[in-house]
Amino acid sequence: HPMHKKKEIRVLGIDDSPFEKGDEKVLVIGTFYRGGEALDGVMSTYCEVDGEDATYNLIQMINASKFKSQLQCLFLDGIAVGGFNIINIHSLHKHTGIPVIVVVRHMPDFQELEKTLQKLGMEKKYALMEKAGPPKLVKTKQGQCYIQIAGMSWGEAEEFMKVCCTRSNIPEAIRAAHLIGAGIVKGESRGRA
Amino acid sequence: HPMHKKKEIRVLGIDDSPFEKGDEKVLVIGTFYRGGEALDGVMSTYCEVDGEDATYNLIQMINASKFKSQLQCLFLDGIAVGGFNIINIHSLHKHTGIPVIVVVRHMPDFQELEKTLQKLGMEKKYALMEKAGPPKLVKTKQGQCYIQIAGMSWGEAEEFMKVCCTRSNIPEAIRAAHLIGAGIVKGESRGRA
Repeated sequence: HPMHKKKEIRVLGIDDSPFEKGDEKVLVIGTFYRGGEALDGVMSTYCEVDGEDATYNLIQMINASKFKSQLQCLFLDGIAVGGFNIINIHSLHKHTGIPVIVVVRHMPDFQELEKTLQKLGMEKKYALMEKAGPPKLVKTKQGQCYIQIAGMSWGEAEEFMKVCCTRSNIPEAIRAAHLIGAGIVKGESRGRA
Repeated sequence: HPMHKKKEIRVLGIDDSPFEKGDEKVLVIGTFYRGGEALDGVMSTYCEVDGEDATYNLIQMINASKFKSQLQCLFLDGIAVGGFNIINIHSLHKHTGIPVIVVVRHMPDFQELEKTLQKLGMEKKYALMEKAGPPKLVKTKQGQCYIQIAGMSWGEAEEFMKVCCTRSNIPEAIRAAHLIGAGIVKGESRGRA
């Protein structure tokens, strides 16, 4: 049955952990999920805070995984980890062969962001963010959120979101990656209880 | 509806992470689960390898948690963390007020274990393990496993196991804690994919 098949698609949810001013690196969590249902594996890597190694490190983490051949979609919680360590989603798609969906929980003020990055001498990072394209609103069972995509159509992306956002307006795999990162680094996550 | 209520019971699954010879401490993960369905939070602590602080550290971790008032059962993956850091399950129950189920995945050879602990000068630890009582076989939807209990009846324990073992013969909360520990410490967990 095709709907059952869709519910069983394998996806990876990626989120970074909390970090503090002065930290050099941030722990990044990947959760291997069956659709929006079950956690079937966890992977992790480290990236530099405000660094430039996120794209490369994520490609390495994913390509080294034994789950890789099953993955049909990578979900990112925002386009950066560790502050301004921006992920090149087209490169991530190209070097893993897996389509990417960036979930934008809170739409940023892009003008403000550009100013901030200019002040920090990180104009190039703004260009990288712009390459991901303007976030588009998608409706899910539980509400709505914005997404950016690489390697797939908007229609396909909406299907993935529908299957994977089972318990909130973001994919379950991202929700879990967020809870895990906080629970490891802070001792307890701030998940809704 | 009472069956729906049961499916929504809140439980904590506790497991340690992989460690190597020479490591002083081991990362211990707690996963806050809705029955056998959804991950809703993560907590963590550290315990000494072959040490004696597991009972105290787990009590502290659980009592400090904002999830505590909702917890109806603690699942332990075996009676020890970090090798022979044995958990006193009666003390854990007494000082948290929450019933405990130890899931014994592989029945140990108790005679062999007693000999090993004698050689290591850890006879007292064997006595502590014995206090948890002989593991009892329980049937679950997905198979069977052995359990030890504190603060609840065997009948209640079997009910909890039925609700929480949704995707394997162990509670989903323990399965997740195991995957998270391995994924953080080793970079990737060895969950079935």
